[in-house]
Amino acid sequence: MNASAVKPALIALDWGTTSLRAYLLGADGLALDSRASSAGLMNLPAGGFDQTFEEVCGAWLDAHPQLPVIAAGMVGSAQGWVEAPYVDTPAGVDALVAGIVTVKAARGTTVRVVPGVLERGVLPNVMRGEETQIFGALASEPALAGKEGALIGLPGTHAKWAFVANERIERFYTFMTGETFGALRDHTILGRTMHPSATHDEAAFLRGVDTARDAGHPGVLATIFSTRTLGLTGQLTAEQQADYLSGLLIGHELRGLNEVLGRDQSSLAGRTLRLIGSDALCERYRAALARFGCQDARTVAHATERGLYRIAAQAGLVPAPHAPARAT
Amino acid sequence: MNASAVKPALIALDWGTTSLRAYLLGADGLALDSRASSAGLMNLPAGGFDQTFEEVCGAWLDAHPQLPVIAAGMVGSAQGWVEAPYVDTPAGVDALVAGIVTVKAARGTTVRVVPGVLERGVLPNVMRGEETQIFGALASEPALAGKEGALIGLPGTHAKWAFVANERIERFYTFMTGETFGALRDHTILGRTMHPSATHDEAAFLRGVDTARDAGHPGVLATIFSTRTLGLTGQLTAEQQADYLSGLLIGHELRGLNEVLGRDQSSLAGRTLRLIGSDALCERYRAALARFGCQDARTVAHATERGLYRIAAQAGLVPAPHAPARAT
Repeated sequence: MNASAVKPALIALDWGTTSLRAYLLGADGLALDSRASSAGLMNLPAGGFDQTFEEVCGAWLDAHPQLPVIAAGMVGSAQGWVEAPYVDTPAGVDALVAGIVTVKAARGTTVRVVPGVLERGVLPNVMRGEETQIFGALASEPALAGKEGALIGLPGTHAKWAFVANERIERFYTFMTGETFGALRDHTILGRTMHPSATHDEAAFLRGVDTARDAGHPGVLATIFSTRTLGLTGQLTAEQQADYLSGLLIGHELRGLNEVLGRDQSSLAGRTLRLIGSDALCERYRAALARFGCQDARTVAHATERGLYRIAAQAGLVPAPHAPARAT
Repeated sequence: MNASAVKPALIALDWGTTSLRAYLLGADGLALDSRASSAGLMNLPAGGFDQTFEEVCGAWLDAHPQLPVIAAGMVGSAQGWVEAPYVDTPAGVDALVAGIVTVKAARGTTVRVVPGVLERGVLPNVMRGEETQIFGALASEPALAGKEGALIGLPGTHAKWAFVANERIERFYTFMTGETFGALRDHTILGRTMHPSATHDEAAFLRGVDTARDAGHPGVLATIFSTRTLGLTGQLTAEQQADYLSGLLIGHELRGLNEVLGRDQSSLAGRTLRLIGSDALCERYRAALARFGCQDARTVAHATERGLYRIAAQAGLVPAPHAPARAT
């Protein structure tokens, strides 16, 4: 099938705290066009959500006024365009569709906002946007949700690890790995002995992963100090320290995840899982996962667009994809 | 004995990164006078160490020009007045004395700088200043170094936990608990939902301690996110969140320490230990330690002065304390 033959079917928005990504999707669920904006919730222009929506999607809607619009992410939070209250776990696509809240843009277009997911408990967890990416990953590889269920990781500022079974998000964890790394590097003594480096030092990174993985230390609050003391004792250069710290934190995240799996007599070793995120970060996680014996952790491409399309299809806004996916 | 009858015997300095505390000590090792300055290593005046030393100690030396002067802390680091290279563990007072390095102040006074302690290994650890406080604690309560050895905690920006046996620091751990708390509160999303509170919320603090202590979570990078989600779900007020996060981090520190003890078939439960630090912070640690079954964790007063005096006595600069300690 030729891409130019596919008609626009949906405008799909991933609208988060720091950025907005907009997709013009064809009836096969794949992007015909896309736009990115830095106008996330923390950085909206004076005209707010409406102005940003018009700037990013106005031309598409001028050309195709009847296109349905769907949005996921922090745009549905209490600080968002309209609040779409969390759906409780276990949450499937049907529950997300039932939780859609609409807002009318200035030009009259109805925007449908997908809710986030909440897991209640002693340590509650929330996600907004990742639920859509997770269902996008399942859409692109249905076999993932097999007997053992799927384990999907979304590295980032607040990394998520979700367990999916029976096409529902059963439970998930949030690790503040990325944001903690930034805070430690930029606002503690650890940053003072670091020199920036243009290249990724894989050996230093894996040294951090292995240190976190191995028993014998009293936890991450203690191991991070070794970023400094390995420098003081000439075992890490100033250029290696940031990658070492990154490896430490990702290693502690995976160690914690492995402990959770262990309670179900499972383990990262030998497990199949999928990653959603930027290529560079997923590559780091893949290298770290390999140190825990996990060799099958491919990155799922286009999870956001696929997820938004799948939810829109379930909501009856667009037809189910009518052809095998185009090569991407 | 009347305090006024005790003659000055020693000027003792605790000179760290952010502050300087100076003591005029009598021959019984207790303070006749003291002064505090904000001129730590990060905040020295244009005249540097010499100007600060003169401002803080000049009057004492004018009155008693022959008084010996001893200093401990970051003043002996590579960025200090003179570098006193680390002494390796196991380190006793004799090793510290052998490692003393001198520097001559502008007025001609010789200042003796106590070295820090280094524990080599996969996760090296360093201390500067705490070694002196630890020997001060042992001086004030010799029975501490009993059969099992002493366990001494020094809460703070970089909390230390030291195992002392046979009057030597055998090994120790550093937990970046205080600095991590500040970085998370001031430079991550966790701070955004916190409101400052004038009062300490003990229930929120202990809830954090208990959450960290109990199994079932995948580690501190995950539990800290609950500071936010318990707020989102109405289970923690904005005013409680900082105390909850503080309890979480201290709880994770003690959990890690407990795991280390467990490898030696020991535990915090029922253990005797001592704390050195500010009253408010030690009180928090005592409350947290009680949740781990440790009820005997008194704060050692005047550990810094006692330690500096003890090291000076071992170096022959002052006589050994010649009388039972005065009431303090």
